[in-house]
Amino acid sequence: MAQVIADRRDIDFVLHEQLQVEELSKHERFADFNRKTIDMIVSEARNLAIKEIFPTWKLGDEEGCRFENGKVAVPESFHKAYELFREGEWIAMCDPAEWGGQGMPSSVAQAAGNYFNGANCAFMMYPALSHGAGRLVEVFGTDKQKKLFLKNMYTGKWGGTMLLTEPEAGSDVGALTTTAVRNEDGTYSITGNKIFISGGENDLVENIIHPVLARIEGAPPGTRGISLFLVPKIWVNDDGSLGEFNDAVCTGIEEKMGIHGNATCSLTLGGKGKCRGTLLGQENKGMQAMFVMMNEARLLVGMQGFSCASASYMNALNYARTRIQGKALVSSDKDAPSVPIIQHPDVRRQLMLMKSYVEGMRSLLYYVGFCEDCIRISNDADVKARYQGMIDVLIPVAKGYVSDRAFEICSHGVQIYGGYGYIKEYPQEQLLRDCRITMIYEGTNGIQAMDLLARKLGLNKGQAFKNLLGEIGKTIEDAKNISGLESLATGAEKTVSKLGEVALHIGKTAGSEKMLNAFAFAHPFMEVTGDAVMAWMLLWRAAVAARKLAEGKSKKGDTAFYEGQVKSAQFFINTILPVTVGKIAAILANDGAAVEISEDAFGGK
Amino acid sequence: MAQVIADRRDIDFVLHEQLQVEELSKHERFADFNRKTIDMIVSEARNLAIKEIFPTWKLGDEEGCRFENGKVAVPESFHKAYELFREGEWIAMCDPAEWGGQGMPSSVAQAAGNYFNGANCAFMMYPALSHGAGRLVEVFGTDKQKKLFLKNMYTGKWGGTMLLTEPEAGSDVGALTTTAVRNEDGTYSITGNKIFISGGENDLVENIIHPVLARIEGAPPGTRGISLFLVPKIWVNDDGSLGEFNDAVCTGIEEKMGIHGNATCSLTLGGKGKCRGTLLGQENKGMQAMFVMMNEARLLVGMQGFSCASASYMNALNYARTRIQGKALVSSDKDAPSVPIIQHPDVRRQLMLMKSYVEGMRSLLYYVGFCEDCIRISNDADVKARYQGMIDVLIPVAKGYVSDRAFEICSHGVQIYGGYGYIKEYPQEQLLRDCRITMIYEGTNGIQAMDLLARKLGLNKGQAFKNLLGEIGKTIEDAKNISGLESLATGAEKTVSKLGEVALHIGKTAGSEKMLNAFAFAHPFMEVTGDAVMAWMLLWRAAVAARKLAEGKSKKGDTAFYEGQVKSAQFFINTILPVTVGKIAAILANDGAAVEISEDAFGGK
Repeated sequence: MAQVIADRRDIDFVLHEQLQVEELSKHERFADFNRKTIDMIVSEARNLAIKEIFPTWKLGDEEGCRFENGKVAVPESFHKAYELFREGEWIAMCDPAEWGGQGMPSSVAQAAGNYFNGANCAFMMYPALSHGAGRLVEVFGTDKQKKLFLKNMYTGKWGGTMLLTEPEAGSDVGALTTTAVRNEDGTYSITGNKIFISGGENDLVENIIHPVLARIEGAPPGTRGISLFLVPKIWVNDDGSLGEFNDAVCTGIEEKMGIHGNATCSLTLGGKGKCRGTLLGQENKGMQAMFVMMNEARLLVGMQGFSCASASYMNALNYARTRIQGKALVSSDKDAPSVPIIQHPDVRRQLMLMKSYVEGMRSLLYYVGFCEDCIRISNDADVKARYQGMIDVLIPVAKGYVSDRAFEICSHGVQIYGGYGYIKEYPQEQLLRDCRITMIYEGTNGIQAMDLLARKLGLNKGQAFKNLLGEIGKTIEDAKNISGLESLATGAEKTVSKLGEVALHIGKTAGSEKMLNAFAFAHPFMEVTGDAVMAWMLLWRAAVAARKLAEGKSKKGDTAFYEGQVKSAQFFINTILPVTVGKIAAILANDGAAVEISEDAFGGK
Repeated sequence: MAQVIADRRDIDFVLHEQLQVEELSKHERFADFNRKTIDMIVSEARNLAIKEIFPTWKLGDEEGCRFENGKVAVPESFHKAYELFREGEWIAMCDPAEWGGQGMPSSVAQAAGNYFNGANCAFMMYPALSHGAGRLVEVFGTDKQKKLFLKNMYTGKWGGTMLLTEPEAGSDVGALTTTAVRNEDGTYSITGNKIFISGGENDLVENIIHPVLARIEGAPPGTRGISLFLVPKIWVNDDGSLGEFNDAVCTGIEEKMGIHGNATCSLTLGGKGKCRGTLLGQENKGMQAMFVMMNEARLLVGMQGFSCASASYMNALNYARTRIQGKALVSSDKDAPSVPIIQHPDVRRQLMLMKSYVEGMRSLLYYVGFCEDCIRISNDADVKARYQGMIDVLIPVAKGYVSDRAFEICSHGVQIYGGYGYIKEYPQEQLLRDCRITMIYEGTNGIQAMDLLARKLGLNKGQAFKNLLGEIGKTIEDAKNISGLESLATGAEKTVSKLGEVALHIGKTAGSEKMLNAFAFAHPFMEVTGDAVMAWMLLWRAAVAARKLAEGKSKKGDTAFYEGQVKSAQFFINTILPVTVGKIAAILANDGAAVEISEDAFGGK
């Protein structure tokens, strides 16, 4: 039967054949997660996603959210799906059981998230933001805060959000003007206006806990003076009972290009001077707390974008197999029957592009989860640090590069449908619209590129990036010894060695008087890094697949699947990497036009 | 004052400094179109676009079209704009005065179209399709047909459409099943179902004339047996008066991703057995007639996409100049004031990308119009043929490459707005949605790429493509002699010489047993051809600008503008062309993965 949202065979391949996550169960922490359990988790996530969440996707797009008198109604169909999602305990998949979590490996949670986000990423924003806010409480909360809030958040009884952006403080968080004044009882009075708050107000949950970034009176300007507060929508008394409504009022929701089912709210805090919150973590350490949560949040956004691409690929593939249009190009018989469009070369080119990126991105995202798992099972500080470095370097790629490519993939998914791709009766245009936000929120992709260049490239004196190149190198060395992959390995090696060269170059330029030049190439540098990571993942997959094929014991369906893995690597390395080499050449050329041009010369006046 | 929709200075530059269209007025045909007249036309088009059409753009998106009982109501605001558009005689800008046209040069009409389509391309579909249908009548109609229909169509009293697509016949027009049976009175009875008909039914006009592709009983299958008919919505009596309603009934309209203001209709012809039409042109020559009109239609779609990109660039530029966010990257002073985002390198990179493509695309589209003008003023068959060859080769680029790039440019336009780019309060997301259709209709961009490879590359034994390379070569030779442009000229020359190489390679491959491989690279080949054309146009512009700068007499504002021209060429040649070289390398590598992979190996089952 045709797969939807994601290819189960491919998910199983990454989990069990590429990453071998079952091995994690040898460690006490993940002892419960043997192959059977993992498969059951993925199957249950898949069922819930396809049967209950996916049907809300188009409905949610059409219905949108309604705002009236400070209240927000989410699409009607979201309520049942949300209850089932809560019942299945899917909100805190990787968190401790004592707070309502399932304690599963993050790699496995990525597979579940793949299905959930592909089914309806607008819906998933509600539980995902709740979880993110919960994690802040878990990591930075006092015992009392944890006791009051955490379990209700992780079990989805209450929601959570993140109040960060203000009209004049978006990418520049440090410019925020929301203030906090300490009261005699230890709480803080908060005053300010926040915008772009996903799920900031909604009728799915009884209460909403808002982590809020604000500046305590007298604190330094910029990010140095920002603190984090917990501001509940309804005050929570010390005994856990609900008190009065807090003075945190939703003043409106945005009309957006996509993710209509998610309420993007504006909130006014302290409009009547009565908004109360409690400090979360230390004074003036709010930004550091944000940074701790950022990897998780950015990985999630990458997963959202990728899941749209994954669904778009499945749809395009199913469509191309069944849509009859035109003769086979090789046929000279004018009366030959028409064929499914999957036989046309340009459709195949687009499908191969979609396939190879979707597979590479899936491996990357699950691998980042796997690195988290490896940190959790290790007692060795060096091993932990090494995996953490890998995560830190990969996060801008997993968010920025992945969401950029995901949008392109979704556009190909529209194109393969032809005119039907543009109309709402078919799913492809909504995936494209929903996907577009992932390039923007949780730090625009420009910010991701700056993060890679300014923070991650030099992390641990460049060791983290070197370790990434080293891991890629290992896969290449391995592939060189596999029959049929030798030339692919050599092809990848050439590009990766050029990546090392351009990394040195741009790192050096960023520290020179030509610094602005380097930053004008930050985004292209993220692209070529991402390309190399894709090639790595695809070559790794091909190596696994080629070995299985060589064993000659794979089942019939599996043979085609494994051959498809080798083809993805072949396509990417021989067709995409030459373009990567061109991009690297452009970065090395280091042209200064973009930074030299005067503001007037841009025209338009 | 900040420019909107399009940069007037840049439009004037292309018309008067790059193409020198005023020279056309030396020829009798265009004697009325001196500089003053041309400037007045552009100013009037600009005023109408900004003051009357642009305000209908967002309204039309929100309101959309309404379908009820076979009737379609367009957005309310379109009515006044349409009347003004008619009054200004903008429908048939280049056509003979005797039929209601203005007879202006096509190059000038492109400038006007730039403003109109940038103001509201959904609105523009109505008059543009009417004009296209009118052109069919003008070229293929009998005297009687012209007398009955043409002036009413060219003056916008009546509308026109194109009934081509059927549910099972999209890209493969030859698969259509609509039939025509000759009646005793010489008319034909038409029966069939047509879809995706832009403006197929609407309340802007008194009557709608539908050119319909159908197969006469007994005609051969495929495209060889297709004829073209004129089917009026309301029958037109021989004295020009309106008769009874024809049996051509609108059965619904599509909900789409964008261009909501344009009604995309399904029409049932002959549901009651009473749909009548008259033959337009010769029996079984319907496809040839279509081909005659295709260049105009495809140039228009390129213009639509480009105009969205042009508007998106203007918006992004104005936003970047006024949006304050973040400190200057070079500043080490933590208390330094925040700056407009146009100072940030990644924003500049995106603006430069937008600028250079928008300028290159503008020059290309106007140049295609200019080639049409040169055909019209020439009496020399060789000269005419040469320009026609140039148009034929450039059309797939002007439609396919331009709409691909335009969509990317619109996406950058969203990105520069950050979160505001995704919300409907700002214009950028609508431009992205509207623009997306241009990659699909009037032949998907996959079809455009096949057209370039299969028809245009070998046109006149390859002479047309060689002439294109020759024209580019002339500009390069000229630029080599201009101080400051030498290295840019050399850079462009390298890429163009590689383009010649890859054209030979792919042309040869397309004629070999590896034919499918070649077609799997048809789209990349269109991309690299387009890149070379962009480099040509930008270098041509830079040459003009550098000469003006060298004269040292330009006004203050002009100096910045001319410097900006050199910067665009510098950016494109040094930053984009290295990537083009990589793309060429990938085509030359000619990897077969996309055509070799088995259908099963794509997965998803």
